[in-house]
Amino acid sequence: MPLRLDSRDPGFAAAFTALVDARREANEDVSRDVTAILKRVRAEGDAALADYTQRFDRHDLNASGWAVTPAETRAALHGISTELRDALELAAARIAAYHEKQKPQDSDGVDAAGVRLGARWSAVDAAGLYVPGGRAAYPSSVLMNAIPAKVAGVERIAIVTPTPGGDINPMVLAAAHIAGIEEVWRVGGAQAIAALAYGTDKIRPVDVITGPGNAWVAEAKRQLYGVVGIDMVAGPSEIVVVADGRNDPEWTAADLLSQSEHDPTSQSILFTDDAAFADAVAQAVERQIPALSTAAVARASWDANGAIILVGDLGEAMPLVDRLAPEHLELAVDDPEPLFARVRHAGSVFLGRMTPEAVGDYVAGPNHVLPTGRRARFSSGLSVLDFMKRTSFLSLTPAAIAAIGPAAVALAKAEGLPAHAASVALRLP
Amino acid sequence: MPLRLDSRDPGFAAAFTALVDARREANEDVSRDVTAILKRVRAEGDAALADYTQRFDRHDLNASGWAVTPAETRAALHGISTELRDALELAAARIAAYHEKQKPQDSDGVDAAGVRLGARWSAVDAAGLYVPGGRAAYPSSVLMNAIPAKVAGVERIAIVTPTPGGDINPMVLAAAHIAGIEEVWRVGGAQAIAALAYGTDKIRPVDVITGPGNAWVAEAKRQLYGVVGIDMVAGPSEIVVVADGRNDPEWTAADLLSQSEHDPTSQSILFTDDAAFADAVAQAVERQIPALSTAAVARASWDANGAIILVGDLGEAMPLVDRLAPEHLELAVDDPEPLFARVRHAGSVFLGRMTPEAVGDYVAGPNHVLPTGRRARFSSGLSVLDFMKRTSFLSLTPAAIAAIGPAAVALAKAEGLPAHAASVALRLP
Repeated sequence: MPLRLDSRDPGFAAAFTALVDARREANEDVSRDVTAILKRVRAEGDAALADYTQRFDRHDLNASGWAVTPAETRAALHGISTELRDALELAAARIAAYHEKQKPQDSDGVDAAGVRLGARWSAVDAAGLYVPGGRAAYPSSVLMNAIPAKVAGVERIAIVTPTPGGDINPMVLAAAHIAGIEEVWRVGGAQAIAALAYGTDKIRPVDVITGPGNAWVAEAKRQLYGVVGIDMVAGPSEIVVVADGRNDPEWTAADLLSQSEHDPTSQSILFTDDAAFADAVAQAVERQIPALSTAAVARASWDANGAIILVGDLGEAMPLVDRLAPEHLELAVDDPEPLFARVRHAGSVFLGRMTPEAVGDYVAGPNHVLPTGRRARFSSGLSVLDFMKRTSFLSLTPAAIAAIGPAAVALAKAEGLPAHAASVALRLP
Repeated sequence: MPLRLDSRDPGFAAAFTALVDARREANEDVSRDVTAILKRVRAEGDAALADYTQRFDRHDLNASGWAVTPAETRAALHGISTELRDALELAAARIAAYHEKQKPQDSDGVDAAGVRLGARWSAVDAAGLYVPGGRAAYPSSVLMNAIPAKVAGVERIAIVTPTPGGDINPMVLAAAHIAGIEEVWRVGGAQAIAALAYGTDKIRPVDVITGPGNAWVAEAKRQLYGVVGIDMVAGPSEIVVVADGRNDPEWTAADLLSQSEHDPTSQSILFTDDAAFADAVAQAVERQIPALSTAAVARASWDANGAIILVGDLGEAMPLVDRLAPEHLELAVDDPEPLFARVRHAGSVFLGRMTPEAVGDYVAGPNHVLPTGRRARFSSGLSVLDFMKRTSFLSLTPAAIAAIGPAAVALAKAEGLPAHAASVALRLP
């Protein structure tokens, strides 16, 4: 059974704080394993990749192939149904349109002191995209990671994906083909992240690595942050639904279960001001779970991490939501604007009764790679900016350095840096 | 003596690759020490802070004070010379003006399918700013870190700074006062970063930590990335100067030494197409070093990490510069535009003969916190965006979900996620 809390109960503050603090952290064993894997791939390159891939994925890279060819990705697209192909293409077009608007503007201008100042954005040279194998092999994630990189102007995008027993999801390949990716390596896990960061004989290094993965993949990205750029440290998926009593309990139950079914560690939380609706949703969840092909996962997640929280009014929920800083937030009321205006920390917000979170997972356009584990306090969803960097620039005339140079000389001397001072002072009239 | 290379020599490619690869990395001993410090501060809070501060900084927090008061920072500003106060205020005003232009635009609109889509930027609640003590206690860094946070709209900014033997640089306090910061803690090192990230009884946790520090501070930030946001993994400072033979060798020598004097691990590299100029700069460096109060550091850095590289023409230098992806790049020629157009990877570029890098360290306006160690390949200087995050949002009407919902249902089913499919399908007409 999920947690049930009522904000009017005397123990509420402590119980809610426990819920906030329960967000999970990196496990020390995983961290040690990953350190060892990174070290070995760095030292031994492709030989280490082949060994780990045989051991973890039962795939012999040297016998059965290191890469998926562009012909295979094209064939995969032609092998899926027209309905799915159309759906992927609609999704790709909408994701591209949304992300085009994120492209940053360069700046360049001369100020009153005669100083030319500006900033120029450019794409990274190469990006690596991790695509999980097995249960979480999602073509939608291929589009959500690859399209922002393409829009940014990244020239080389390489996918790494484990192919357990040689198997690879044709929908993933179809999505790669739609996104225009021709470099797909059959390696996964921390060893694939190491290969992308350090490079091997076969796999050239990249500058940025993005994409979801299990705890080993996430820890490898965390450890290699600084050697490469990464999208973020990602944890289990989360949804918070803020709903009044005039929603259909079946809709709300499905929305909650759409996170629960991801993983046993996912979290779904309902805030409502209507006790009867809370009960109705709890019952609808129980009715819906057995019909799901993902019933076991959804059951485990809902029982361990689900919560239904009764509040006096929905406005009271908003500071509590901010403390959770959820990845996904639905505001299922007739007029969500007053509540939305009070949201400070959330990855993505779904406004009104007709906006289920899942529509954002696939086709709406905004990115579905979003900060989890309270990281919406300080980080944002994946965007074009994750694949670009900014170079500032400056140009001074003799008059400009005469105007602002003396202050630089004074500060450099005060900081005890005489060569700094000299480099400016020598140019003063 | 610094390294001397000539691009026409047969061994050049290998020697240059060695120079690129020599960028330094985290030391495993530092990493282990830092892990232990973070763990202890998390478990023991203020008691651990007091113990480490006594041990490393010979400062008894409980006897001599945990914090600098706002009255002390105000007094520090009134205690410095008018020249320095004016210089700090000019710097602050110019930094604020440059960073105001970085504030991102929100977006909100309805597309052809009737889907409302947008993104809203907001500041983090709290930022922590690390200010080194001792040799590298720079008031300019206080301004460069604090002002972007203020411009972003961060409500709480806390400084942590070690005060060895109780000493604190009055210029640092004056800069803090100008930047409007009233919370200054007398703690430093990895233990201060841990306190900011986890919070203690006295120091409330923050969301983002920025600011320069030694190897322990940098490693603490790296290890806590994900618990908090951080500016970047920073390493030793670097400059690359691309100069033709028509520069004053004294100016170029001072520019090179302005990085060398920072730290023995700093790096200064000159590319030129003029062998006589190369010799003249080398001689000017030798003449200037003994006159510097920072002579010992500059000597160590220049001998160990300095380089003068002769190229056939300056255009030939540009792909080499890109491989170094330097923090600072000066293009000291009459018309720098053609060279600048070819730069892909650099933190900040200084155009023309009258733009010494040091003017950018203090008063020009762009940030002096820039990516080092080849990280300009994928990261940018500190900006207002480091203190903000973006929340995407979405709102669908019944017509909009009818238009795009079926594709979401198809993809959710293909990914084996039935609750995702149901949450959309239940709302379709």
